[in-house]
Order: sequence, then structure tokens, then C-alpha cells
Amino acid sequence: MNFLLINGEPGESVSALDRGFQYGDGIFETLAVANGEPLLWEAHRRRFFHGAARLGIAAPAGELLRREAEQVCRGAPRGVLKIMLTRGVSGRGYAPGPEAAPTRTVGLLPWPDYPARHRTDGVNAQFCHTLITRHNILAGLKHLNRLEQILARMELSGECAEGLMQDETGHVIEGTMTNLFVVSRGTLLTPDLSRSGVAGVMRDLVLERAPALSIDCRVAGLKREDILDADEVFLTNSLIGVWPVRRIESREYPAGPVTRRIQEAVRDATVAD
Amino acid sequence: MNFLLINGEPGESVSALDRGFQYGDGIFETLAVANGEPLLWEAHRRRFFHGAARLGIAAPAGELLRREAEQVCRGAPRGVLKIMLTRGVSGRGYAPGPEAAPTRTVGLLPWPDYPARHRTDGVNAQFCHTLITRHNILAGLKHLNRLEQILARMELSGECAEGLMQDETGHVIEGTMTNLFVVSRGTLLTPDLSRSGVAGVMRDLVLERAPALSIDCRVAGLKREDILDADEVFLTNSLIGVWPVRRIESREYPAGPVTRRIQEAVRDATVAD
Repeated sequence: MNFLLINGEPGESVSALDRGFQYGDGIFETLAVANGEPLLWEAHRRRFFHGAARLGIAAPAGELLRREAEQVCRGAPRGVLKIMLTRGVSGRGYAPGPEAAPTRTVGLLPWPDYPARHRTDGVNAQFCHTLITRHNILAGLKHLNRLEQILARMELSGECAEGLMQDETGHVIEGTMTNLFVVSRGTLLTPDLSRSGVAGVMRDLVLERAPALSIDCRVAGLKREDILDADEVFLTNSLIGVWPVRRIESREYPAGPVTRRIQEAVRDATVAD
Repeated sequence: MNFLLINGEPGESVSALDRGFQYGDGIFETLAVANGEPLLWEAHRRRFFHGAARLGIAAPAGELLRREAEQVCRGAPRGVLKIMLTRGVSGRGYAPGPEAAPTRTVGLLPWPDYPARHRTDGVNAQFCHTLITRHNILAGLKHLNRLEQILARMELSGECAEGLMQDETGHVIEGTMTNLFVVSRGTLLTPDLSRSGVAGVMRDLVLERAPALSIDCRVAGLKREDILDADEVFLTNSLIGVWPVRRIESREYPAGPVTRRIQEAVRDATVAD
């Protein structure tokens, strides 16, 4: 961590009794930072407050959060802004005690060293064996219970930059750290996240901007065969922007025209390599 | 925390970059302590090492763990021994970096102030709306991704000491912090935990000791109606031992003969009120 504020004060550590550490009881956001400025602030802020409300954790004032974000990002040519909010310290047991006051951390992390060719040439991906569960209540949230994504990520062979996760009904939901899009007979499709997965801010931006490009875009149930049959496949998140997928198992894809138009359409919201 | 060792040293805080705090990437155990001695040590130790292996986290030596446990429990008439193991500090991202060295915490916490009548007279319970997901890969483990249990627990009305959680197929899996048993036409039944839930040490002990009491005992799929139709219902964990359930919604149950015999059969492994 280049610079971290914990409840507004520079710090490095949290109580071992914090419910974030004890139970993963909290939420987080990661934002790309360019020229000292966090990108897509408003969309991340909105998801953060939505998540806090869903988990019943008192959120800090939006202005305070913004001020702390500016403070840690100031002067950084690029980086990752990570914001966390946990339910704070309380006694043992799942029920939060009345004494719990939320812990918020706002920190700047190094820009990840993904190769620039991931965006230009694309990446290989694989299907993971680790299933993603169908969480009614946690679906869409960027919460701190991330063991499934960790175990899926640990499966990746060295040549794959991302793993795709399916639920127990065989629906492909997302990548371990990305959202998934496919182009099939001219239509842009992305999995339904009403039961599982993280509703990514970059995914929302693609869905928002596709219509202006006259790209027909729909949320759909997608199975493994639908991915393998697709004409183009790409992955999104706030840090990577858009990565074309060039190969899954023995299937090769072009970094096709729809993928390139979407990349161009969200370029202003991503960090240049 | 009365007394906490973090990687063998007295401490109170952990790095904000610890993967326990960042992602709930770890496991834990809670043991009852009586007269300075952790109860059911061997069973908890076994589950702890099993969980660490399943998550691919290097476990400490068993002797080291035992020595630290003895150190924090020494002289405590009663208390709760909590042991945690996380994958430790690494950079951002779900893939653990090669630099991650596990964090282990061994601490003594106050004995919970459950009323003694919970064990003698029994408790009220309710069905929770929050579903428990069907985790193939995490089933049985006492891991640090506990948001579902927290959200379920937050539903409880003041008069209920425990909430029962169902999966999306309508099977009742466990309580938020306990395992569930029912007695139905003379047979003792407990839900199948191969897809969800925490395989409790006290549950294992009940399953192990029931045959010697000539109580027929089986793991079974149990739905809401099966619970409401049962003759007796009880809840178990390492701290509470066995709590009879006296009421769920409008259904009342006796603290019946099988429940009382099981309570007696595990008395040596529980803390006296």
C-alpha cells in the first residue's frame, strides 16, 4: 500500500477483532486512478453505498469519502484506489454488537503490471472447476467473502489470464475478477447477475454505452456451449477496461469488431497502458 | 480478547493487507475452555488442519498450536479459545502472491453469557429468510466467509435464540451458529452437510455417541415440514453443548427423552453452566 487511511488517519493495521478480519463482514471497491483522479467515481460510490445499505453497515458521508480518496490519490500518475468498509470491531459471534463502529480504509495501491498486449492482442481464458454459488442475498455486491474467487483463481494455468466461473446449473456467471461479454450473431450478451456475481462498474458502462453504437445488447443466461459458440468474447473491469479473449480451451476467437468498438467507447474511463 | 497471540507474539492488530481482512481468506475454530483446558482439542485440531489443506494454506505444526493454546488458556476457569489461520499478507488481487506467509491468531475470549435456562428449559428458534448457498467447495469448512450467517442472525427477533437456514432447494441445513438435530419416530436425524454448512465438532460427537445409547441416527435431507413434524428438536455446538428447541413459529416441542440422553452423553465435553 503506497498510502492508507484508516478511519481518516494514516495507518497500516486494523484490530484483529475487526469483523472484516473475523468474518469478511464488509464491502470494497477498486478504482483505476489516472493523473491523481479516481475514474468512474460516481458509479463506484453508488455501488459502495448500495452495498453498505444491503449489509446494514453505516456508510461514511459521501463528501468525506471523496475527500479521503482525493487525499490518497493526489499526484499519482496512475494507481489503484481501494476503499473498504467493514462493520468494525465487536465481540465474538455473528450478531454485531451495539458497540460495533464501522472501519473504513481508503488506500492507494500500485498499478497492476498486466501486460499491455492483454488489451491489444487479448488473453487466454479457461473454465474453472470451482463453482460460484447462487447467492440470492449477496448477488451483485462487491463484498469481502471472496473465497470462491480465490480458489478459482488458484486453478489458473500460467498461460491463462482469467478463469470463467459457472454456477451449479451450468450457467457461466463471470470471470474471477472480471465480467464477461460475448457477441453472438451480432448481439452483445452478458450473464444475468441477479443470483450470483459482482455487478461490475465497467460492465454497467458497456451496457450503458452500447446502444449509442447501435449494438444490440442483452442480459442473458449463458452456458459453456454459448461461450464456445460465440463470435467474440471479452472481459471487463474497472482496472483492465476491456480485454478481448483470444482462446478458451481449443476454441480461438478474433479480437473482433464489436470488441474493438466497445474498447474505443469506454477508453475515456480507463487508464492508458 | 483477554489474551491474543498473533504468530506467537502478544498483539492486538493485523495488517490491513492481510488476506483475512481483504477477502475472508482463512479458517477458524472456537473451542470451549474449562479449567484452563480446551475441550475436544483433537477434533477441532483435525478440522482446522483439514480446512487449511482444503484452502491450500500452510498450517502451523500441531505441537506449536497446542503450546500456544495452552499458553492463552492457562488459569482460565472458563472461556472461549479462538484460533484463526489466514493466508497472510499479499498484494492486491485474488491470486495469493508468493510472498504470502500465513497469519495465525490464538486467543482467549470471554465465556458467552447465554442464560443457563437455554440448556435446561430450551430455546425458541425461527426460520430465516436469508438462504444458505450450496457451496460444493466450501461445504463443511469453518471458513471466514460468514456474511450469510451474519445476515441471517440479524433477522432474529429478540425472543429467538437461534435461526434455521435453508438452501434454495428448501432443505434446512443448520442454525446460524449451531447444527440441527431432530427426533422423528424414534430416529435421530441431522441434515446432510455435503453441499453446505459447517460440520460441527459437537455434531460429530453426537453422531459418534448416539449408537452406544441405542439411538438410531442418520444423516438425512430435512425440509421445513420435517422440522415442524418432528417429535424433538435440538441444536449443538462446541460452546453451548446441546440446547433443546421448545418452539419454532407456533409449533411447540418437549425437551424430550432423546434430547436429554444426548445432553447427558456429551456432558463431559461441555462447560458446566
